[in-house]
Order: sequence, then structure tokens, then C-alpha cells
Amino acid sequence: MNHNPYLRLDRDNAVVLLVDHQAGLLSLVRDIEPDRFKNNVLALADTAKFFDLPTILTTSFETGPNGPLMPELTAMFPDAPYIARPGQINAWDNDAFVEAIKATGRKQLILAGVVTEVCVAFPALSAIEAGFEVFVVADASGTFNEITRDAAWRRMEAAGAQMMTWFGVACELQRDWRRDIEGLGTLCANHIPDYRNLMTAFHAQQAK
Amino acid sequence: MNHNPYLRLDRDNAVVLLVDHQAGLLSLVRDIEPDRFKNNVLALADTAKFFDLPTILTTSFETGPNGPLMPELTAMFPDAPYIARPGQINAWDNDAFVEAIKATGRKQLILAGVVTEVCVAFPALSAIEAGFEVFVVADASGTFNEITRDAAWRRMEAAGAQMMTWFGVACELQRDWRRDIEGLGTLCANHIPDYRNLMTAFHAQQAK
Amino acid sequence: MNHNPYLRLDRDNAVVLLVDHQAGLLSLVRDIEPDRFKNNVLALADTAKFFDLPTILTTSFETGPNGPLMPELTAMFPDAPYIARPGQINAWDNDAFVEAIKATGRKQLILAGVVTEVCVAFPALSAIEAGFEVFVVADASGTFNEITRDAAWRRMEAAGAQMMTWFGVACELQRDWRRDIEGLGTLCANHIPDYRNLMTAFHAQQAK
Amino acid sequence: MNHNPYLRLDRDNAVVLLVDHQAGLLSLVRDIEPDRFKNNVLALADTAKFFDLPTILTTSFETGPNGPLMPELTAMFPDAPYIARPGQINAWDNDAFVEAIKATGRKQLILAGVVTEVCVAFPALSAIEAGFEVFVVADASGTFNEITRDAAWRRMEAAGAQMMTWFGVACELQRDWRRDIEGLGTLCANHIPDYRNLMTAFHAQQAK
Amino acid sequence: MNHNPYLRLDRDNAVVLLVDHQAGLLSLVRDIEPDRFKNNVLALADTAKFFDLPTILTTSFETGPNGPLMPELTAMFPDAPYIARPGQINAWDNDAFVEAIKATGRKQLILAGVVTEVCVAFPALSAIEAGFEVFVVADASGTFNEITRDAAWRRMEAAGAQMMTWFGVACELQRDWRRDIEGLGTLCANHIPDYRNLMTAFHAQQAK
Amino acid sequence: MNHNPYLRLDRDNAVVLLVDHQAGLLSLVRDIEPDRFKNNVLALADTAKFFDLPTILTTSFETGPNGPLMPELTAMFPDAPYIARPGQINAWDNDAFVEAIKATGRKQLILAGVVTEVCVAFPALSAIEAGFEVFVVADASGTFNEITRDAAWRRMEAAGAQMMTWFGVACELQRDWRRDIEGLGTLCANHIPDYRNLMTAFHAQQAK
Amino acid sequence: MNHNPYLRLDRDNAVVLLVDHQAGLLSLVRDIEPDRFKNNVLALADTAKFFDLPTILTTSFETGPNGPLMPELTAMFPDAPYIARPGQINAWDNDAFVEAIKATGRKQLILAGVVTEVCVAFPALSAIEAGFEVFVVADASGTFNEITRDAAWRRMEAAGAQMMTWFGVACELQRDWRRDIEGLGTLCANHIPDYRNLMTAFHAQQAK
Amino acid sequence: MNHNPYLRLDRDNAVVLLVDHQAGLLSLVRDIEPDRFKNNVLALADTAKFFDLPTILTTSFETGPNGPLMPELTAMFPDAPYIARPGQINAWDNDAFVEAIKATGRKQLILAGVVTEVCVAFPALSAIEAGFEVFVVADASGTFNEITRDAAWRRMEAAGAQMMTWFGVACELQRDWRRDIEGLGTLCANHIPDYRNLMTAFHAQQAK
Repeated sequence: MNHNPYLRLDRDNAVVLLVDHQAGLLSLVRDIEPDRFKNNVLALADTAKFFDLPTILTTSFETGPNGPLMPELTAMFPDAPYIARPGQINAWDNDAFVEAIKATGRKQLILAGVVTEVCVAFPALSAIEAGFEVFVVADASGTFNEITRDAAWRRMEAAGAQMMTWFGVACELQRDWRRDIEGLGTLCANHIPDYRNLMTAFHAQQAK
Repeated sequence: MNHNPYLRLDRDNAVVLLVDHQAGLLSLVRDIEPDRFKNNVLALADTAKFFDLPTILTTSFETGPNGPLMPELTAMFPDAPYIARPGQINAWDNDAFVEAIKATGRKQLILAGVVTEVCVAFPALSAIEAGFEVFVVADASGTFNEITRDAAWRRMEAAGAQMMTWFGVACELQRDWRRDIEGLGTLCANHIPDYRNLMTAFHAQQAK
Repeated sequence: MNHNPYLRLDRDNAVVLLVDHQAGLLSLVRDIEPDRFKNNVLALADTAKFFDLPTILTTSFETGPNGPLMPELTAMFPDAPYIARPGQINAWDNDAFVEAIKATGRKQLILAGVVTEVCVAFPALSAIEAGFEVFVVADASGTFNEITRDAAWRRMEAAGAQMMTWFGVACELQRDWRRDIEGLGTLCANHIPDYRNLMTAFHAQQAK
Repeated sequence: MNHNPYLRLDRDNAVVLLVDHQAGLLSLVRDIEPDRFKNNVLALADTAKFFDLPTILTTSFETGPNGPLMPELTAMFPDAPYIARPGQINAWDNDAFVEAIKATGRKQLILAGVVTEVCVAFPALSAIEAGFEVFVVADASGTFNEITRDAAWRRMEAAGAQMMTWFGVACELQRDWRRDIEGLGTLCANHIPDYRNLMTAFHAQQAK
Repeated sequence: MNHNPYLRLDRDNAVVLLVDHQAGLLSLVRDIEPDRFKNNVLALADTAKFFDLPTILTTSFETGPNGPLMPELTAMFPDAPYIARPGQINAWDNDAFVEAIKATGRKQLILAGVVTEVCVAFPALSAIEAGFEVFVVADASGTFNEITRDAAWRRMEAAGAQMMTWFGVACELQRDWRRDIEGLGTLCANHIPDYRNLMTAFHAQQAK
Repeated sequence: MNHNPYLRLDRDNAVVLLVDHQAGLLSLVRDIEPDRFKNNVLALADTAKFFDLPTILTTSFETGPNGPLMPELTAMFPDAPYIARPGQINAWDNDAFVEAIKATGRKQLILAGVVTEVCVAFPALSAIEAGFEVFVVADASGTFNEITRDAAWRRMEAAGAQMMTWFGVACELQRDWRRDIEGLGTLCANHIPDYRNLMTAFHAQQAK
Repeated sequence: MNHNPYLRLDRDNAVVLLVDHQAGLLSLVRDIEPDRFKNNVLALADTAKFFDLPTILTTSFETGPNGPLMPELTAMFPDAPYIARPGQINAWDNDAFVEAIKATGRKQLILAGVVTEVCVAFPALSAIEAGFEVFVVADASGTFNEITRDAAWRRMEAAGAQMMTWFGVACELQRDWRRDIEGLGTLCANHIPDYRNLMTAFHAQQAK
Repeated sequence: MNHNPYLRLDRDNAVVLLVDHQAGLLSLVRDIEPDRFKNNVLALADTAKFFDLPTILTTSFETGPNGPLMPELTAMFPDAPYIARPGQINAWDNDAFVEAIKATGRKQLILAGVVTEVCVAFPALSAIEAGFEVFVVADASGTFNEITRDAAWRRMEAAGAQMMTWFGVACELQRDWRRDIEGLGTLCANHIPDYRNLMTAFHAQQAK
């Protein structure tokens, strides 16, 4: 019988890392269609805000063709550590990035970025080696096509990363709806059109 | 040689018809994924506003399981004719709906709704028979699956409807960017994430 | 401007033709997955019952590998004309079949069968030539794959057949929910799981 | 050489857990089409009945937008433990749910629910940690899209869950057709249209 | 009402044209997978033989990279006119090809080839212009991808070609199973694995 | 019987129009994957060169986010008319563009661009109305997704445009391999990897 | 560094197990299209013959709706052990089946069957537990859909089964083309149409 | 907590193995479309050149139907060890191939080839057994279809191979853009059309 421990996200021990969601690089993402991908990234950002998780932003060559960070992220996290890497491809090779993580004292890394097999996979592998628990937010990470995505997922998974999506992250952090019903409901309604529909119909009927 | 006349949208002759985008019925739409569909419907609504097109809203049994109209539409068009049909499935069978259209004096109908083969196709066919030009906004209309969509498109097309999508509608109404560059740019940036990225990168570089 | 007349289904002028939905032939259908296809065929049959439309059943070599008619259809239409064709592939080549249609005095044929490019397309083309209006129920008809389906649809469409699906047929026959709200609601709930869910949620909330 | 033990379902040691198959939440399921998904859930329920397995039902906020449990499940298991969770997202965090499982004295959990990465994955991971064997019924569990499904499967699998589908569960519990030929045949015919066709053809020919 | 005549295949008026099914060119076909495509081409050839239809073979530059004709076709039609075109891309530009067709005195052309948008579409359009009825065997014709296929079908269809597949051709030529039950059954069993299965099961049960 | 004339491309009567293949707009194209799309556009350009067809380039707002024309096109056609439109969305609304076409004295327009439903469809419809024959190069035109593509194709087709792809255009212009075997072979080998493979294998074997 | 031993197929230590490829059950297979699946099964059978591997056939209830074994298999292996199981679903629960395997003295099981998650997965898991090396021939095994296939593959893989396809099996058994060039070439040409084309073109050119 | 070491590519310890990218075998590749596949293979070759990695070429029966190596590879690596294997299917069974690898003194093998489950998987498994670290370049390796690819990936992954794609390999070798910005930028622009577009737009704007 299998008694593996359940590595469970804990809102007092998690930090969110958003890696290279830059305007130029986003045009490379073709394994998720753009409306859905944009929504997923903003949903993850809203999740970070909702749970007051420390959040770290980083970019690669933002003054070149890779382009600036999505302005929504800059606006949402004005006080977050923001590491514009001078050249390191693997964000973990940048000391300021690792220091920013360590400064939080947290051990669970919630990680998303563009493109998956590089900007997500490289720091994921480094972080696992360094003893962190890594939770990849797969649907807020994007890459060229399904083949590159699939290879990237397998490499990270084989190394011990946990594959998740933004809604699972939000629910695992929340644990119990009673913690803040209104808040989680709003998060869902803003980023899951089907859930918005459920709420619209429900409240209309209640109002009768 | 073929000299078919080009039936071209004219912003002084067009009216927008939004049929049955109701919270319950939206859960039936499975030929477009929800993030994209919601975006398309709101993009069409924004297009109607941007060109000051007369817009008519209608619903079917909104107090039953079909549910209320998407609240965004109600909010955007507070003064639009709003026909809550008491039972007619084909909106064209409802006199108030047809009167609202005729009251605009316009002959070009820009039509979208849920579900495509019923709420869109039935009034499209009736309107063509009544001498109107019908432009179906295919990506702001949804239905159960690709087979139902494909059959619906073919029936409307065989009757003479023009198949379009929201972006083509916007561009054909605009004719020339110089009419309002800022306005069309904002419309695109708000509803086409890839276009937003282009603008973000462009403006960042200009600012240097 | 286009003033094509709208060929609209009329419940006093329509007859339903179910062609070769036989247990053996059903194993050939691979352009729709089996759960959905079975549901669509039964939904069309329920539609025929709900509107009291004359319905005609026919089979091809049912004592051979093609197998017997789906038992549900036999049970639902015990008094319907049932033409077990001795060899004609195109049901229209069978005099008894055409006579059964003519005996109804109706001119609108609602047609579905297996396989689409043969058992549906051949009688569709013959019926159009004979002056009938033909409405193909595309999602209650099945064939080997998407290529055969697509070719079959195009051939029928080019000849003047109207492509529909069972839900569109039901709604066009109904015209107005007030004709029988309960009846149409039940039909929908029994064959559209998403609609069943809407009704379940609605009634639960009403009961509070 | 590999001598892994075969964790095999045993009808004297298994319990079925149906988590959050609620009318509202079902509208979120888009990785399986609705006809097939509804059939799979009912097939799993019929399997539980056929083998007289203890079955436990649970829901999340059923008086809110998530909506009531599928009425078919309520009707089929009138005497089953039914835990309407007041707020816990992970059913395993609800003591009554875990107590109901422990009260059966069984160690093999056959688990399905909506949505996969939350309502299935969270209790699956908790149960594995607690020493249970977990068998996920993948085709009776649903979620937003293929990406969320794929990530959820990988996380559960990495933790030691066995990925199964309802038909495999039924066959592994049955072990030998001779245990009850009629019963298993009926279960298959009711939920596998292709198998129904085989039986129809077979019996028709036998009757000759 | 629509009274279009039904252009129906007649085995006394049809001729089969197999255009450029050459070993090299076959490697370009990627809109149908190879096992299925090979089967379809041979099924069409068997159909031609079964109905004793005059059949004409033609190739393009068979001594160059395009390669020799599929050896199965050469073997099946040793006495058929065989036009190795010295350079004309549109077979209709080759006088010997057109003469061979005219020599049959037949007006219905059953046409398949590789690649669809060139080797099939060009002679199809020329033949229509010359007053022939053209029936394209879509699933025995192949091309680079779905986009090229789709464009080719539309161009031919708009010009008046009938889109068919080999099984539809065979059934329309046969008209009545009683013409030769054994023959048509064998044709089906050899080229439709699912039909072979039906016959295997049927005969096994009969033998009991 | 159908005697439609075959509208056939003639290298003395055709002109190539490349509309808005700009670096920014190309990031919007998601109905064809980028490697294939880039290849198709360059293949069409090479075809224009190979047949010495007059070619006209046009762009929309190239100094803004839409970006500059693909540099390969600028380099290949240094002497071609190049119309940088100051604002007209439909290139046909720009007098210089129409004049450039009329100056060639040609009546067949080979047209490709980005995005299909706007930059291709609008001038296509205008040109048909003006009495030109329009041949759309579908695989050198791109847009947001399959739904927008499909709608665009249908609208153009209904107006009388011919749907083609670059390889069909090249073959219809060439008519006979003997016109220039080497040239057409090179064109194919450079843009169809499978054809390159055939030639590599063929020549290697010849060299033995 | 990883030094896992390579479990490599050895033609002196392998036995082929064909489980339940029965005419009725084949109609359940919908994760591979029928032409390809039939070809794969026969290719595996030819592989077994080519390498003189001991081969064991087994069926489940072949006198009922499951139907008789594919006649091609019966004809190819007239002297093979043939175990018509009286009721055991897992072939490993049938003593005669296990005895037949043990009688060969071989430890490597090459296993294929219908349906994958039951008739393949159950004996695969049992065999691994019993100390055999299991090589699943994935493309000669079929099931209801991609979800059932994917779950079945994961369960077997987690237990230590090697996932292979018929061509990989043949190549690993062959080791060196020189062992029998003609034989392997014929096997490939008969079951890989693209390889047949290569050989046709090659030999035609050699003959010049 | 998981502390797996990160097996990271090191440009002083890696060697590139290109196995059987031959003109004939390439026609078998159908799991990636040809334009993309050709680009990926050349991108990997360019990556090898850019990092001055030792590169080894090998072929199987290049004088037979498998055909000669892609001429681009021969041209790019004129001095690379080139092992034309006389018959061994697994390149690792060829002593010259293994010696060439060992002669480099490197332990990290970057491996790609055609077809994936044979020419890639066999040497990958052998190399792992021999103590090498294996990095499979999945998108520069091709095979018959998705099923064969998926099975091949799983077998290699279970043995400890790392699944990568060419862009991930290039980035992991580069480590820091500052090592050679121009060089990596050129590599990306030449093989990622979307990246080329970003650079075109960026430089055009800079030039203003």
C-alpha cells in the first residue's frame, strides 16, 4: 500500500513566481488560445492577491524584442520584487531572484511563465534541486505547441514538480469556502464564464 | 465573368440584434470555448457602441431555466429596445421585435445569438424573406457542437445570409482607420490579446 | 437584395422518415460518438411523437448482417408504416415507401438514416427531384468518418436539401413555447443533459 | 525484473465515492461531451448498485450556485450516507465523510467527481496519505478542459492513484462472467450503445 | 419548391478515371492517413472491376521523382488505356486522355487522383466545361493537408462537380442488392473492416 | 447538364496582390501554424517571380503596431508597386492600389493577405463587383482561428471568388512541365519538404 | 546518473499473446480508425510468424455477442494454443492460458487485445506480478475512446509494463537487417503503405 | 521533500547524435507536419554548430529505399563522424558509432532521429544502460502517428531519458544571453517565425 505524503499548498508557506509574461514573448504562445491564456494568467495573479501571497516578478531582456511585462501585472503588484534579468535565461541563475524567494522564508513555489520548457522548466528543476516544493501552474504557462508543452511537463514531472492549474491552486489555498465565501466566489465569477452564468442565474432567481 | 454586387455593411444602414444571450442558455454553448465566446459577444457589443448602431435586445423565457440576459449587455444598452418574448421561439414571430427593427429604418441586420441553429437561423431566414440583408456574426453565436453549427451555417448561407465575425464587422463599418484611430485601436486592444501585446510593445519602445 | 422564401417546417405538412437505423449498420457510424448518436436518434423519434407527425420506418436486409432495426424505434412506432426493403438501396426506389409518404399528403420530409451518403442522400436527392421539400436531420444520421459526411452534406445541399439537426427541427415545429411548455421542456430535458441541469437547478431553487 | 504487486479491485473491499456531481457544477465540465459524461456517471452508479458496493454521496454548497446533486443519484441511493459539506472543498477535510468511509471497513476507494483537479484530486491525495488504495474513475469525473484534466491526472498518478474508467472497474469487480452473466450483460447494454447493438443483432439471429 | 434533377450514376454511362496515383506523389498525401487512403483507392478500383466500368489510367512523369503508378492498379487493369502524360499537368490537356474518355461514349466521369487540387480539380473543371457530369471520389483523392483539400472541394463544387466517396459510388451503381448480393457483400467486406466483422459474426451464428 | 465555363488562371492575364503581410499582423495568425504559413507566403512569392507575374504590395499603417512588411517580400519585389495605405482598411478603397492593378491590364487577381476576413475578403468582394476574376490563395492568407477563416471563405465563395492554394496556382499557371521542368521542380523542392525528399532520393539513385 | 537496465526483446525469450480480437468486440474499438487497427493487428500477427514466436490465442464468450475470433488469426495460427475462456475476464485467471505461456519457457510477453483497459491491462498487471516482462503492443490494442486508452496506458505503465507498437517490436526482435533483409522488407511493405511506396519507387528506378 | 539533482546540459559535456534523417524514411513521419519537422531538424543542427558541439551522423541502408541523409546535414557537418551502418537497427549495436561517442569523452547525449520508437528509442535505452545521460530532442524526431510517438516517449521516459525540444536544448546550453546575444538571436529568428517577426518590428522601430 502507498502512503505517499500529500504535498499540499499552504497559504502561509507559498510564494508566487511570474516569469517572463512579456508582450513579445506572449506572441510565441500557441498551445493555448489567447483569450483563455490571458484569462488564466490574470486569474493566477488575482489568486495571489486574494491570498496575500508574496509574489515575485521577473523578465528577460525587456528592452529588446521580448518586450515589456504585461502591464496588468505591473499594475497589480506595484510593490513586488521585480527582477529584470540582465541575461540569465534560467531565473534561478540570477541571485537577486533566488534571494527574493529566500527572503520570504517560504518553501512552496507556485510557478508560471513563458515559454514553458525554458522559463518555467529551468527554474523549476533548479528549485527542486535546492530543496523547494514546486507547483507548476500549467494553464498560466505557455509555449509553441503541444509537443513542446508535453515534453516540458514530462521533464518537470519526472523531477518531482506537481502539475496544477490556477483553479486548483486557488481551491487548495482556500481549503474551506467559509474562510471567505464572497471573495472566492468573485474570483471564480471573474475568471470562469460558466461560473459567472451560474451566479447570474442564481441571484436572479433569489431576487424574485 | 462574375459581377455580383458587394453587400457591404454601412454604419448608417445597420442595426445590431442580440438574441437570447441568457445565462442559462450560455451553458449549452460548446462549439466555442467559454473565455473566447464571452469575449466575442462583448466585442460585438462594444462594436455596436463604438459605431453608435441602434441595438435591439431580446430574450426567451428569461424567468425560467433559460435565465436572465448577460448582465453586461443589460448594463451597456440601458436604453435599447428590450423585448422579453412571451413564447415565440423565432424572434421574428414577435411583432414588437420586428417593429423595433423597422423603426430604425435600417435594412442591414447584424445578428448574433444562442443557439445558432434556432435563435439566430430562424430570424435570419425570416428577415431575408422580408427583404433585409442579414449579416450573421458567427463567432458571437454559439451552439451545442460543431455538427449543429455547421448545419446551421449552411442553411443560413444557402438562403443568402452573409457569414461574418465580429472583427470583420468592425472593420467593414470603420472603412478607414482615420475615421477614429484611437477608438478602433482601443476596441482591438480590449478584445484581441495579440493586438494588445503589439500595442504594449510598440508604445514601450516609442517611450524610449 | 435577396428575397428567398423561407422554407419553414410546418407540423401539418411534415412527415418523418427513419431509414436503416439497424443494429449492424450502426457499428459503421464513426463520425459521431455512440452515446451522442443514440441520443440524437431517440430525440428525433421523441420529436416525431411529440408533434404527432406521421412517421415511416424502413430497413435494408434486416435478416442479414445489417441486423434488425433499433428496438427502441420499433417499440415507439408500433403502428407506423414499416417497409423492410427486399433489395433497393435507395428507399425511394421502393414503391411502398414512396406510397407511404404520398399517403400522408405531406410535402415536407424530415429525413435521417445510416449511412448518410447512401441511405440518406439517395432518397433525399430523389425526393427533391420529385418536388418534395427535404430537411435532413444531420445529427441523427451517421457515416464512416468526417470525409464521407462532408461529401454527403455537400451533395445534398447542392441539390437543395436543408441541413438541420434534431433540436432545430423540434423548435421550428413548435414555433411558440406556449403551444405546450411542459412538453417541449421535457423533450429538451430528456435529450440535452445541460438543459436538464438548468431545470434541476431552477426547480430546486423555486422549491425553496 | 519487475514484480510490482497488482492492486486489484475486490468487491468485498471497495467503496464508491461520488463527489459533487451537482447540476450547477456539471455546466463547468467541458473535457467530455455531455451525453457521454452523463452516461458514464450513471454507468458508475449502476456498477455500484450491481455489486452492492457501499456508496457515499457528498456535495458542496448545494443550496448555492453549485446546485443540487443530480436527481438520478439521489434516487438510486436513497439510503447512502449523504454528506452536504458546509464549506470544506476537500471532502477529506470533512470528518463525517471520512467517518462514513471508515465505517465500511473497506480500504479501496473508487472515486469520481466534478471538477477533477479539485473535488477528485484533493480527496484522492488525502486518502493515499491516509493509507487507502485509490482508484479514480476518470471518465465519470470531469473538468474545464484537456489541460486541467491532464494536469490533474498527472498529480494523482504521481502520488500513487490508479487511473481507471467505469468499464474497467466493472470488469475487475466482476472477475468472471459466470458470477452473473445476465447482470453484467444488462449493465453493458444499458451504457455501451455498441454493445447493445451486438446483443440486439445476436438475439435477433438466435430467435430465427 | 425545388425540382432539381438528380444526377444519378448509371453503370451504363459511367467511366472511371484514376489520375496520378504514383508511388512518389503518394508521399505528399497527408489529409488522409495512409492505411485508409490505400484502402480507399483499392476499393474504388475494385468497384470499377465489379461493375465492369471502363477505366482509364494516367500518370505524370512517371520516370522521375513522381514515381511509377501503384503496382496494384497496373495489375488490376492490364488492358485499360494507360496514358503516361509527357508533361501536361491537367490530364484534360492531353488529347489521348480525352480521346480515351470519348471513345467510351460515356458522359459520367468518376474521378480520383493525387493531389486533389491539381490532378483531380483541373480535369474536373475542364470536363464540366466540356459538358460531362463529374463525380469526384473524394476519399480516393488526397492532398497536402485539410486546407488544400477544403479549397479544392469548394472550387470543384462551385463549378458543379458532385462530391462523393467510394462507398456511395458503389451503392449508387448497384441500385439493388439483388443485382448481385454476393458481389457487393464481398466488396464491402474486403474494404470496410466493420462490415467484415458484421459478416463474420453473422455467418458464425448461422453456422450453429 | 452543367456547362459552367472553367475560369482558368492564365499567366498573361494574372496579377499577384500581397496584402498586409506585416510583422505585427502576422502574430494574429493562428489558423495555420507559423512554419507552414511563412513557407506558404514565400512559396506564393516565388511563384509570382517564377512566372514573371506583375505583383503589387500593400500595407496598412506600417509605422504603427501593425509593423513593417515581411522583409523577404520587400527584398524579392524591389520594383513592385508598393502602396502604404494611409488608412483605408479595404485596399480597394485606395485609388493607387486599384490604379496599379488596372495599369497591368490584367483581369485575374491572385490574392493573399492577413487577416483573411478583412484584408483579403474586402478587396476580393470589391474586385468581383468591379468585374475582375478573383483567385484567393487560401494557404497564404491567415486569420485568428478556424471559425473566422471558415466564415471568411464562405462569404468570398458565395460572391464568386475561387478558393485556391499556392501549389494549385503554380500548377495552373505552368500548364505543362515542359515549359520549364527545372524551374517548377526547384519551386516544389524549395517549398514542399516531401517533394524535396523525393528528388533527393531520385537523384541519389540516378547518380549510382 | 541513471543506469537502468534496458529490457530488450529477445526472439528466443518472447511469446505473443493475442487476447479477444473478436468480431463483436472489434466494433467497440473507437480510439483507432478501423483500417489502421486491422492493419496493425495483422502486422503483429505477421511479426509473430516472421520470427517464429510461440503465439497464444484466447477469446471470451465467443459463442455470444462478443463473436468469433478474427478469421485471419485463426487461419494464420492453426496450431497455436487456443483458449476459449469459459468466463474469466482476466485471461490470467484461466489456468490453461497461464500454463500455455509457462510451457514455452519464455519470460517476455508481447501482449495485445481488445479492449485495452480490460483484456490487455488485467493480464498485463497479473503477469508483471508473476515476474514476467510485459511489452504491450499499444497500436494492436483498442478501446472505446482516448480517455479510456490513456487511463489504461497509465495504469499499466505505472506497474512496469513497456509501451510499444508493432513496428518497434519487429525492429527490436530483428536487431540487424542482415538477419533477413528480404523478410523484414516484405513485412514493412505489406503493412506500411509509405514504405511500400519507397520500395516501389526504388525498384522501378533500379530496373532502369 | 524532493531533492532530485537537476541533470542540466553542459556545452562542454554534450554531444549531438543525428540518427537516420534519411530522405526515404522522412516520408514515414506523420506525427509532425513536414514544414515544421524540417525546420526543427535544421534548428537542432544549427544549435549544434552554434555551440560547437561534437556531432555524429549515422544512417541505415542509405543505398536502399531508406535513401540518403538529408543533404543539408551532410553539408553542415562535412567533418563529423559519419557511420553508415551496414545493418544494425539500434545504432548502439554498431561499434563505430559507440566509439565515436566515447572518443568525445562526453557523457550527455542529445539525440534525435527517425523513427522515434526505433532509431531514437533503441540507442537511448542502450545509452542509459551504459551510463550516459540522454536528452531526447522530441520535436526533431518523428514517427508514424501520435500513438507510436506517445508509446515511444513513455518507454524512454520510464528508463530515465529527459524529454526536450530543440529550443529548450539551445537555451539550456546558452545559459546566459550575454554569452553571445547576436548568435542566439539569429538562431531564434531563423527558426521561429514569430521571433523573426518580433525582431523585424523591433528593429524597424529602433531605426526610426
